[in-house]
Amino acid sequence: MRVEGAWRRAIEPTGDGAVIVLDQTALPHRVAWLELATLEDVARAIRDMWIRGAPLIGATAAYGVALAVRADARPEALAEACATLAATRPTAVNLRWALDEVAARLAPLPPGDRGDAALALAARICDDEVARCEAIGRHGVALIEAAAARAGGRPVRVLTHCNAGWLAAVDWGTATAPIYRAHEAGIPVEVWVDETRPRNQGLLTAWELAQHGVPHTLIADNAGGHLMQHGRVDLCIVGTDRTTREGDVCNKIGTYLKALAAHDNGVPFYVAVPSPSIDWSIAAGADVPIEERAGDEVRRVSGRAPGGGPAELELVPAATAVANPAFDVTPRRLVTALVTERGVCAASADGLRELFHERAGGAAAPPERIP
Amino acid sequence: MRVEGAWRRAIEPTGDGAVIVLDQTALPHRVAWLELATLEDVARAIRDMWIRGAPLIGATAAYGVALAVRADARPEALAEACATLAATRPTAVNLRWALDEVAARLAPLPPGDRGDAALALAARICDDEVARCEAIGRHGVALIEAAAARAGGRPVRVLTHCNAGWLAAVDWGTATAPIYRAHEAGIPVEVWVDETRPRNQGLLTAWELAQHGVPHTLIADNAGGHLMQHGRVDLCIVGTDRTTREGDVCNKIGTYLKALAAHDNGVPFYVAVPSPSIDWSIAAGADVPIEERAGDEVRRVSGRAPGGGPAELELVPAATAVANPAFDVTPRRLVTALVTERGVCAASADGLRELFHERAGGAAAPPERIP
Repeated sequence: MRVEGAWRRAIEPTGDGAVIVLDQTALPHRVAWLELATLEDVARAIRDMWIRGAPLIGATAAYGVALAVRADARPEALAEACATLAATRPTAVNLRWALDEVAARLAPLPPGDRGDAALALAARICDDEVARCEAIGRHGVALIEAAAARAGGRPVRVLTHCNAGWLAAVDWGTATAPIYRAHEAGIPVEVWVDETRPRNQGLLTAWELAQHGVPHTLIADNAGGHLMQHGRVDLCIVGTDRTTREGDVCNKIGTYLKALAAHDNGVPFYVAVPSPSIDWSIAAGADVPIEERAGDEVRRVSGRAPGGGPAELELVPAATAVANPAFDVTPRRLVTALVTERGVCAASADGLRELFHERAGGAAAPPERIP
Repeated sequence: MRVEGAWRRAIEPTGDGAVIVLDQTALPHRVAWLELATLEDVARAIRDMWIRGAPLIGATAAYGVALAVRADARPEALAEACATLAATRPTAVNLRWALDEVAARLAPLPPGDRGDAALALAARICDDEVARCEAIGRHGVALIEAAAARAGGRPVRVLTHCNAGWLAAVDWGTATAPIYRAHEAGIPVEVWVDETRPRNQGLLTAWELAQHGVPHTLIADNAGGHLMQHGRVDLCIVGTDRTTREGDVCNKIGTYLKALAAHDNGVPFYVAVPSPSIDWSIAAGADVPIEERAGDEVRRVSGRAPGGGPAELELVPAATAVANPAFDVTPRRLVTALVTERGVCAASADGLRELFHERAGGAAAPPERIP
């Protein structure tokens, strides 16, 4: 989407094998593009969360393998690169999948061909992510159009939680794709952006929307229910880290509370689900393991010092016990519909089966993403 | 409650007409007692939010009048003092009530007697607040005892939002009174403390509980729903800024979301309501005006610099639009019961009428608090 006036992706090849990415730890205060020219650069970018978001992590890791095999074509180098990258975010399923995919496709090739093949494969992984997001946007924009018809001329007010934007997904984003598409189509939209404590990913969403020119207002996570009670939200749309084959939605902590409020106030609650986020091996949301993250994510906060430079401060004394579950599960009964790259469906086994009949047998393997 | 080992109140007379209060802007990082020896000291303490919480503001303002009339017994001085103090927090109903009360009681007295009378009156306002909180604690502890019986030996896990503790109410607090009383009685309790963005009053609650030795864990506001889904909350108890005569509860923004989650998971949701917080003039919660506060409360955050001193940083760029509603309304259908100084009742017109039959006629005037 647009950054400082130009249409950009969250990861872009430089043409000589390297890539540039946006340093997401500097946002929203500073726009810094970083060049990743070696395997170690890529590993550090993922480990230190300069880049984040499941699709972007997978795509960036693929470029990391490409950089490694271009520098050293020996089979051991490929294996070492994959091991190095896999260790950067041990729980990221998408990262593992991208590495396995690249390794499997490079293995049969002559070593001399692997560098170019890896680059092409990484580029294709990126394009594939973008195509899925674009398709979600095409299907999801109809939901915003329907709300616009009900709104009778005033802007459609959309609430979103966390960052399921292009920063997390190369371009368009998942939850944001219908919003950007509506904006591009001239449908007036205004976005309520949840701050999303403790990591404040809402600030990334607000930055994205500002750069692309989409009107938006940041709110504390506590505020959304009140806004819905007062008729100030027309629809909610969020992303998902994992959606079960029966349609239960695991997403950033706090999503469940917004879904409850939407249900209580008759506000439609949509979830943007690219198919790689559907876990066909799990039926019930209660079976999704929830990551407990470090308490310091709650205790410490980053921003800009009054003088202007980056700064961190301690919000909560180190001695205070903190619990920090990173995700929660929204039961399908609270979800109005899922928006996938193949269309909109009910949040149910039947709904998903209708769109993904070839997958709905319950296969445990991650879905194939590159045909 | 206990602070650094000694039992303290949030406001204490020094014996020579002045008072000392805890600087709540320095908490939880630093315990600083400030002496307020003049009207201007008191006005500044309220204006700059060194002290906060409706009951404590009223009590502190009463001492402010006492300091003013002891320094200058002329009738004009009394009127000026009341005007100065009333301007410190223009929307604080409790503050106006306390000032009107003190002014009305001092007016008939000979000027020479007003200083001592004002001091006695301020002390009585404090004692009255404390007595109400103690009574809420006595009635509310039965709810925790019932949960303890169900818990079969393990600690009762209580979730609270914002700070309805002794820092806001001279001693014991409202929502915290049953918790402190249970702890004093040897019933094991553990408290989930919501951070309560944007002003982070949960940090005050965590500090209070730590000082008094009550086990607790701080969580992001987003986390409570997930904890309830997983059976990790036995009951919720919160305070209220204003409860209507039909039992709708206006409280700190985000309370409604927790009440929804409690209802969805069969977790009892209690509200501690001292009678001055009951607005007999309003029936429906939808008619309670909701204060919209400055966006900078969301944009900026205070804490301690990594080096140790107090620090502030900009979390959100100044250009980002922010909405900051300070309160929301929890409909009575989501409230299991109200805990008042006269006992526990249903959140309904009938429930409140039974306990406060003399008030339930719909009088618009604030309730009489000093017999």
